[in-house]
Amino acid sequence: MAEINQRKVLRVDLSSESISIETLPEDILRKYMGGSALAGYFLLNELKPGVDPLGEENVLVVAASILSGTPIPGASRFTIASKSPLTNGFGESEAGGWWAPEFGKAGFIAAVIKGRASRPVYLWVKDGKAEIRDASHLVGKTVGEGEQIIRKELGDERIVVAQIGPSGEKLVKYACVLNNSKHANGRTGMGAVFGSKNLRGIAVRGTQEVPVADKEKVREIVKWFAQNWKNNALNVRLNKWGTAHSIPGLHETGTLPSYNFRDGVIDGAENLYGMTMSDTILVKNEGCYACPIRCKRVAKDEKYQVDPYYGGPEYETIGGFGSICGITDLRPVAKAHELCNKYGLDTISASVAVGFAMECYEKGIITEGDTDGLKLEFGNAEAMLKLVEMIAHRQGIGYILGEGIVAAAKKFGKGAEKYAMHVKGQEFAAHDPRGKTGVGLGFALSPTGADHLEMPHDGGFADYTVALDSMNVFGIYEPIDVRDLTARKLRLFQYLQMYYCFNNSVGFCNLVTAPAFTFSFGKVLEIVSAVTGWHTGMWEIMKVGERANVMARIFNTREGFGPEDDTLPERFFEPMGKGPLSGKAIDKEEFYKLIKDFYTISGWDDKGVPTKAKIAELGLDWIEF
Amino acid sequence: MAEINQRKVLRVDLSSESISIETLPEDILRKYMGGSALAGYFLLNELKPGVDPLGEENVLVVAASILSGTPIPGASRFTIASKSPLTNGFGESEAGGWWAPEFGKAGFIAAVIKGRASRPVYLWVKDGKAEIRDASHLVGKTVGEGEQIIRKELGDERIVVAQIGPSGEKLVKYACVLNNSKHANGRTGMGAVFGSKNLRGIAVRGTQEVPVADKEKVREIVKWFAQNWKNNALNVRLNKWGTAHSIPGLHETGTLPSYNFRDGVIDGAENLYGMTMSDTILVKNEGCYACPIRCKRVAKDEKYQVDPYYGGPEYETIGGFGSICGITDLRPVAKAHELCNKYGLDTISASVAVGFAMECYEKGIITEGDTDGLKLEFGNAEAMLKLVEMIAHRQGIGYILGEGIVAAAKKFGKGAEKYAMHVKGQEFAAHDPRGKTGVGLGFALSPTGADHLEMPHDGGFADYTVALDSMNVFGIYEPIDVRDLTARKLRLFQYLQMYYCFNNSVGFCNLVTAPAFTFSFGKVLEIVSAVTGWHTGMWEIMKVGERANVMARIFNTREGFGPEDDTLPERFFEPMGKGPLSGKAIDKEEFYKLIKDFYTISGWDDKGVPTKAKIAELGLDWIEF
Repeated sequence: MAEINQRKVLRVDLSSESISIETLPEDILRKYMGGSALAGYFLLNELKPGVDPLGEENVLVVAASILSGTPIPGASRFTIASKSPLTNGFGESEAGGWWAPEFGKAGFIAAVIKGRASRPVYLWVKDGKAEIRDASHLVGKTVGEGEQIIRKELGDERIVVAQIGPSGEKLVKYACVLNNSKHANGRTGMGAVFGSKNLRGIAVRGTQEVPVADKEKVREIVKWFAQNWKNNALNVRLNKWGTAHSIPGLHETGTLPSYNFRDGVIDGAENLYGMTMSDTILVKNEGCYACPIRCKRVAKDEKYQVDPYYGGPEYETIGGFGSICGITDLRPVAKAHELCNKYGLDTISASVAVGFAMECYEKGIITEGDTDGLKLEFGNAEAMLKLVEMIAHRQGIGYILGEGIVAAAKKFGKGAEKYAMHVKGQEFAAHDPRGKTGVGLGFALSPTGADHLEMPHDGGFADYTVALDSMNVFGIYEPIDVRDLTARKLRLFQYLQMYYCFNNSVGFCNLVTAPAFTFSFGKVLEIVSAVTGWHTGMWEIMKVGERANVMARIFNTREGFGPEDDTLPERFFEPMGKGPLSGKAIDKEEFYKLIKDFYTISGWDDKGVPTKAKIAELGLDWIEF
Repeated sequence: MAEINQRKVLRVDLSSESISIETLPEDILRKYMGGSALAGYFLLNELKPGVDPLGEENVLVVAASILSGTPIPGASRFTIASKSPLTNGFGESEAGGWWAPEFGKAGFIAAVIKGRASRPVYLWVKDGKAEIRDASHLVGKTVGEGEQIIRKELGDERIVVAQIGPSGEKLVKYACVLNNSKHANGRTGMGAVFGSKNLRGIAVRGTQEVPVADKEKVREIVKWFAQNWKNNALNVRLNKWGTAHSIPGLHETGTLPSYNFRDGVIDGAENLYGMTMSDTILVKNEGCYACPIRCKRVAKDEKYQVDPYYGGPEYETIGGFGSICGITDLRPVAKAHELCNKYGLDTISASVAVGFAMECYEKGIITEGDTDGLKLEFGNAEAMLKLVEMIAHRQGIGYILGEGIVAAAKKFGKGAEKYAMHVKGQEFAAHDPRGKTGVGLGFALSPTGADHLEMPHDGGFADYTVALDSMNVFGIYEPIDVRDLTARKLRLFQYLQMYYCFNNSVGFCNLVTAPAFTFSFGKVLEIVSAVTGWHTGMWEIMKVGERANVMARIFNTREGFGPEDDTLPERFFEPMGKGPLSGKAIDKEEFYKLIKDFYTISGWDDKGVPTKAKIAELGLDWIEF
C-alpha cells in the first residue's frame, strides 16, 4: 500500500522563515494515524520539557489524519497541539469544519512549526507547496476580516484559513484558532501559541485527490451513510436542533450546569433549547465537509446585532454563556458566541471565566471597583457581553480573566479559587460530574483538563439501547447507569476513552460514530481499511487511542504534573443546588479510589505515571523521560 | 439471536447419580464463549478453594463452545478443567478430535460434574438427554477396549467416547482423557480426576444440527477454507508431515530439546523428522472433525508391534520420548505413544518423567536398585518402554514417577530437583526457553505450568512474513526476533497469550488460525459472527481470552500460588549444552524483570495477583477471593 499511504509533513521554522517537506513513513502513519496521536509523536520527539509555552522554543503541531480529504462523512476534524499556555501541560484541541480536508487534498497530513517569526506572518499551503507570507496588515483585524483579506490577496475564494484573531495576537490564554471563522480548535489556548509565534494562521487550498486503497468501498460507505444517518434518532435530532437538542433532557434530569455549576436546572431553560433556537434566531443549519448531518447552527439577531458570518452557538457555548452565567436568552448567548469567534476566544473558557467572575461578584470577592463598574450579577446579559469584549481586548478585569480562572482566582484572593471551575487550569465544559460520572472521571483524568473532547460523553449512555448493543464489541453486556460511580463504570469509561482518543487521532467526530451514532464500530473499521488498505481491527484502533492518551500523559509527567492534578473542583463533592439532583454530591473517597483504580487498570504506577512496561507495550519505548 | 444461542449445560451429581439440564443465558455464553473461559466461570463459581483434587469435592467441567458441532474447520477442540492433582492449581486441558462436535450436536455446551460415584460409571449423552451407566465391566480395560465395549453395548458405532484408561483409574497424576482413543486432553491430570470420581468416560452421540445465525456465511467460510488452506505453507507442511514437520528447523537452530533439555541438538535427529515418519512407520494421516488439514499421524511397526488403532506420535511426543530421552528411532517413540494412549497417560508428562529418571540415573541419583534393574541410560529405548508400562500400571519406580516429577524428585533426593523440568509441577512440553523466549514467559506465567497449549508458540514467528503482517491488527509493525527477551517481546507475548486463551475458549486449534495459519484474525471474527449473529470484534475476543487467563490466575491465587511459582527451572538460566545455541543462558534478572513487567501491564499487583480494579474491568467482579 506504499503508493496509497504517502502523506507529507510540512516543517516550518518561523525564526529562519524556512520550510521543508518530508514524507511520513507508513509504519509511523499506521501507528499514530493522525490528529492527537500523531501530534503526541512529534511533540514528545521534538519538544523539550520545561519550555515557556509562549516562548520561541515551544513547538506547534497541526495534524490532520489518514482520512482527511477523503469523502468519508464526519471525518473532517484535525488537531492543533503544543505545550499549553493555559495548563502548562499537553495542549491539544480538535476542530471540524473545512480546513483538514483541504490540507489533506493539498497532500499533507501535518505541519510541525517551530521558532518565532520576527514579523507577523501567515502560512500559505497549496497542493504540496507552502510559503511564509507577511501578515502585518492583518494585525488587529477580526477573524472574518482576516479571512476575507487572505482570500482576496491570494485570489481564491475557496481557500480555507485556520486563523487567530486579536485575542490570539494579544495572548489571551484561551485564545483559539478558527477555520471558516466558525469552526474552532477551542481548548488549551492554541491561539495564544499561534500569537506568540507571530503566526496569524494557515491558509490552505488543495485540489488533489487523496488516494484511497479501495475507491469503490469508500463510495459505498459514503452512499450508505447518506441513506442511513436518518435512521439514527440522535443524528436526526442533531440535524434538526443542533447539539443544543440535548438541553431539555439535561434540564429534566437536573444536569444542566447553571449558575457556575451551583445548580443543575435554571428557570427559563426552555429559552435555551435547540428547539427554541430553531424557532427564533436560527437562519439555517450548516455542517462540516462531507457530512450530511449539518448539526451546526447559523444565528442572526437584530437587537444584539448578531452577525451570521460567525455561525451560531453550540451546546457548550449555550451552556456556558447561558445557564452557567444564569442567562436564559439565546440572543445575548449568540452575540457572545459571535464575539468569541470574531476575536478568536474559546467560548467555553471565556464563558466559564464570566460565570466565575459573576459568582465572585455575587460573593463580594470582587466589586464594581474591580469590574470598571460592571454589575456582574448572574443573568446580567449586558455585563456578560461587555466582559467578553474586555477579555478579548485584555482590558481591566478582562486582562486578569484572560490569564485563565486559576490565575484570576489567585489574583482575586479571598477564597475565589473555590469558584474556579477547572481541572489542570482548563475551564469546565458544560457537564456536571454529579450527574455524569464518566465525565467527572474524564475531566479529572484528561491530560488537558476539563475538556469535553478528551473523554467519553456518557450523558444518556444508559438511555439508548443502540449504544448498549454497540458496547457488546467491547465485551460489555450489562446496562450501566449514567450516574454510577462503580468499577463497571470505570471499565466503560476506560474503553470509551481509548476509543474517543482514537477518534481524535483520525479526525472522527464523536457525534457520527458508535456507541450511539450512525457509524458503528464495525463501519469505522471498514472505513480505515477502505482508505488505507490496512486490515485493521478493534484492538489496533483502541491501541492508537490508548497510545495518544498515554503520550499526552507522559508529556504532562515530564512537565511536573502528578496525581494531585487528577482532581475535580471541590464543588462537585458538595451537594448540588437546585434541581432533581439537589443535594447530590460525588463521594470523594469512592471517586479517588476509582482514579487510583484507573491507574492500575491502565498499567500506570500509583502516582499515575505510565510504567516503562506499559509504555513498551504500546510500542512507545522510544520515549525518554 | 435468542433462538440461535441456546446451549444446554449438563449437570451431573455422581454421588447421588442424578442429572439435570439447564440452559445457559446468552449473556454468559457471549462473555465466556466456551472452553477455558466457560470452565473458569463454573469452577470459580462452584468449587471451593483448598479441596483435595482427587476428593469428592472437586468439580469437573467439560466445556465445548459456541462453535462445537458447526462445520467450521479447526474448531473441534474442547476443554476439561478441574483442580489439578498434578499442580494443585487450575487444571485445564484441551483436545481436538471428534468429541466436542458430537457433544454440540447433542445440544450441549458443557457438563459440570460433581461428587463421586460409588461404583464405576460412565455417562451416556444423546440428543439432549443423558444417563449414568455402570462401568464395572470396563475396569482395567484399555482405552481401545473400553471404547469398543461402549459402542457395542449402546449399539452405535458412531458414538464418540472421551475416556480414561487404567492409568486414570489408578490415579496417575498425569493420566489423560482420550476421545477416539487418540485425541488427548493430555495435561494437568484430568484423567486422574475422572478416575477419582469413578467416572470412566463420557460417551456422546448427537444427531441434531447446531443452529447458526447465518448458514450461508458459514457454508461460504467452510468452502473458502477448503480452497485456501493449501495456500498456507505451514498448513501444507502440517498436512504432509504432521506437527513433526518442525523438527528439522528446531534441530538446525539448536532448539530441539535433547537429553532432558541439556542440549539443543541430538545426533541422528533426522531419524525423528516428520518427513522420516512419512517414509517409514506412517500408515496414513488423519484429522479432526471438519478439518481438511489432517495433521494427525497413524503409525504402525512390526518390530515394536505398534498398534495403529491409537494413531501416532505428534511433535510433543516425539520430542519427549525421542530427543528428550536421547532416543532417535521413531519406532520405540511410536510404541511409547501407543502405550500412553492405550493406558491413558499424558505423553508429555510421561516422557519428561522418563527423561528425568534417565538423567537421575546417569548422575547416580538413582541406580538399578531403584529401577528394578532397568538401565535407564539416555537412548535406551527398551528401558524407556518398560518404564512407561511401569508408570501406567504404577509399578516400582513407575509409581513414584506417576506422582509427577516434583514429587519424584523429592523422593529421590540428592539434588534430583535440579533435573526436574517442570513449572508449577507440570512437566515441560518440548520447547526450550533459551531458544524460544516467548515460550519461556508462557511456561512461567501459565496458570497450568509448562503447558504448550496455554501460551503463544513463538517458534518461527520472526521467520514468517505472513505472521508479522497479521500482527498489524494488534498494532505491532516491527519484526521481533524469536530469541528477544525485551519489552517488545513481552507485548507480543501478552497479545498472543490473550488470543490463544480465546482460542482455548472457542475450541480453535492454534494451528489453523492467525498469526501464521490459514484463518486470519478477520476470518475468525467472521466465524464467531456468522455462527452466533453477534457483531463481535477483536477487542471482545481478546477480552474473552484475557478473562480466561485471569480467572485461572485467580483460581491459583485462591489455592495459595504466588510469584515464586512464576518461574523456570534453573537449567534454563545455565548455559545450553550442545548445538548452535551452546553456551546460551537466559539472563535471569532480565527474565524476572519481564515477569514483573507482565504483572504491571496486565493490571496485576506486584505479587502477580489480578487487582480488584482489573477484575472489574474484565466484568469478573462477581468473583470473591
